[in-house]
Amino acid sequence: SKENNGGVTRNLPVDAVINLDHGDPTMYESYWRTLGDDECTFVIKGYESLSYFSNPKNPCWFLEPKLEESIKSLHGAVGNAATDGYSIVVGTGSSQLLQAVLYAVTSHDQPNQINVVSAAPYYSSYPEITDLVRSGLYKWAGDAHQFDKNEPYVEFVTSPNNPSGVIRGPVVNGGGGILVHDLAYYWPQYTPITSSLEFDIMLFTASKCTGHAGSRIGWALVKDKEVAKKMTKFMEVITIGVSKESQLRVAKILQVIVDRCKCFGSPEGHNFFEFGKNLLTKRWEILRETVKQNKMFILPKYPLQHCNYTGDVTQAHPAFAWIKCKDGTDCEKLFRNHNILTRGGRKFGSDPGFVRVSMLGREEEFNLFIDRLSMIQIFNKGDGHENENLD
Amino acid sequence: SKENNGGVTRNLPVDAVINLDHGDPTMYESYWRTLGDDECTFVIKGYESLSYFSNPKNPCWFLEPKLEESIKSLHGAVGNAATDGYSIVVGTGSSQLLQAVLYAVTSHDQPNQINVVSAAPYYSSYPEITDLVRSGLYKWAGDAHQFDKNEPYVEFVTSPNNPSGVIRGPVVNGGGGILVHDLAYYWPQYTPITSSLEFDIMLFTASKCTGHAGSRIGWALVKDKEVAKKMTKFMEVITIGVSKESQLRVAKILQVIVDRCKCFGSPEGHNFFEFGKNLLTKRWEILRETVKQNKMFILPKYPLQHCNYTGDVTQAHPAFAWIKCKDGTDCEKLFRNHNILTRGGRKFGSDPGFVRVSMLGREEEFNLFIDRLSMIQIFNKGDGHENENLD
Repeated sequence: SKENNGGVTRNLPVDAVINLDHGDPTMYESYWRTLGDDECTFVIKGYESLSYFSNPKNPCWFLEPKLEESIKSLHGAVGNAATDGYSIVVGTGSSQLLQAVLYAVTSHDQPNQINVVSAAPYYSSYPEITDLVRSGLYKWAGDAHQFDKNEPYVEFVTSPNNPSGVIRGPVVNGGGGILVHDLAYYWPQYTPITSSLEFDIMLFTASKCTGHAGSRIGWALVKDKEVAKKMTKFMEVITIGVSKESQLRVAKILQVIVDRCKCFGSPEGHNFFEFGKNLLTKRWEILRETVKQNKMFILPKYPLQHCNYTGDVTQAHPAFAWIKCKDGTDCEKLFRNHNILTRGGRKFGSDPGFVRVSMLGREEEFNLFIDRLSMIQIFNKGDGHENENLD
Repeated sequence: SKENNGGVTRNLPVDAVINLDHGDPTMYESYWRTLGDDECTFVIKGYESLSYFSNPKNPCWFLEPKLEESIKSLHGAVGNAATDGYSIVVGTGSSQLLQAVLYAVTSHDQPNQINVVSAAPYYSSYPEITDLVRSGLYKWAGDAHQFDKNEPYVEFVTSPNNPSGVIRGPVVNGGGGILVHDLAYYWPQYTPITSSLEFDIMLFTASKCTGHAGSRIGWALVKDKEVAKKMTKFMEVITIGVSKESQLRVAKILQVIVDRCKCFGSPEGHNFFEFGKNLLTKRWEILRETVKQNKMFILPKYPLQHCNYTGDVTQAHPAFAWIKCKDGTDCEKLFRNHNILTRGGRKFGSDPGFVRVSMLGREEEFNLFIDRLSMIQIFNKGDGHENENLD
């Protein structure tokens, strides 16, 4: 199985384990390489940003003013979320902001833990984050579809959804809960932008917007000033703020995207979202074609919608493929046998027939994934001449 | 009160509020300004460090290899802690590592919360961090001197101590507890380095070592591999790792310190610890002289000890002055009336006669603090000709 596969020279050995479990957004590296160093290289001198404080006048005193400005410019240019009248709270990724929200909307006086729910299939980290230290303030209460208690709750609304890519709204009947909109994937490369959202609490992250996952920068747009203050307090106690280097670098990167994102469709403009959308469109076409050929799997379908940002009528090309084995086989196990690491459906509150596969890896990893997916077809048809590759 | 004070031109108005509540280490800015840009400017290109992963082969997969290397070199050069046989876990400041330790040493199966204690006066953040989300795994149990339950416990041993600057060991009788050594201030500018420590869990932070508090980089040296793994798991769930930009910049900064720290006492060498020690020695002399003059306050005394790093016999010059009002006045309130923000004794499990005052501010802030401290003397002697400045 070490032989050259189809004459294509690869850096990865043909039997390399490919990790598509995390949504590691390395496909964006090739975009950032095409831009000149002057434009997006971040430089900081030895004596800069020593202080804990970024802006003592801002209730979120550790938020760099340049990052705040870039975030507002970017939402303005893309039109995916309102920022007027919102407080911005920065976090060490949006994971930390989720916890800050839970802390901010609960109270030390409440007799019971507040219920935290999200509609299945939900992001696998929600239950883990919520229950990690067995908080007395909040507890994971599972699938929002099943929640029928007459008790206070927080509902995470993930739209587009991780893992399934679909646009969602809250599902708990009766209402009265606190809604947290996790909008990590509400960017034009993944899904049509159909309106500028104005929810009470909206979470975003650089990881999935620009590809800079290593920077660990997330931000929350928060309508209620008191909630924003309590979130800031949480971050103050837990990590005394957020890396200045990451904030300043991401501020620069977002500004580069803004400067280049006004002209969609001009081939020389190096529009970031156009790069992302084109590459994901291509990958989804290849994936759909492969799945169609081997007849073993099912992929979600996404409606055609008008995107206010691109001006096109288009369907979603999500960051993850939410794949189901037609015959109910444990899909994570099947893929692991082919040296493809994915995340099984059970972790998302769904069934093991499903897996979540990252579509954001490097070109080489994606190609190897597609090659192996094709081989699964051959094996299962009983053709079997390639089955030396399968264990 | 806006008149020019003693002919010294200042950027700060003479009645400016000075914040010496946080230990914001801005005094180090002037050191980093003296070094050439080439040596300590950090540069990162737009396409670098996009991935979540730094080193998939390390159990702490988000630790940058360069940071790991610099940390080992620095401890080797200073001789303050052993690194051989230890796992290094990086955190978003040492605050996050404290929480990671609490998570790592407790178990979801245990019937009761583990007790978390530290000897008063203890770092004011310990109770806040421990109880913030009312964890079911651990709870703050107060002053370690008072702890006499026959139950499992974690003892934070802060040495040199924050706020009091003294060298400490564990105090709970009977033992059997888990000891966490918080060594944020165990560096030659603050205290004589009397031995290379080899405790089970040792915490450090760039904030207090190099002055780069804004970077939010802490590290733990951990003997037990399983504890290090659980700490890593905590960081994975809570923030999916630690900012790469901060890790890489701090790696560079630590290496600059290492390269220059081998020759202590050479005036041209720009030894970082020598700069810090000289400046703190000067500030402590001025502070002790001022306190001696006005007879209202008490400062701790520190023993003369041989420092293995500098080769001198020297006393401590801590990052904080732990000041007591002789007559038991609420010292925080007294200082606030003079526009000096400090942290009152009660927050450290001590009495309100004490305050903690940062010695790490900019020169101008320190000078204003000393000016005002002198004026408190004048007022209280009934001389009173300056009392228009006092409310």
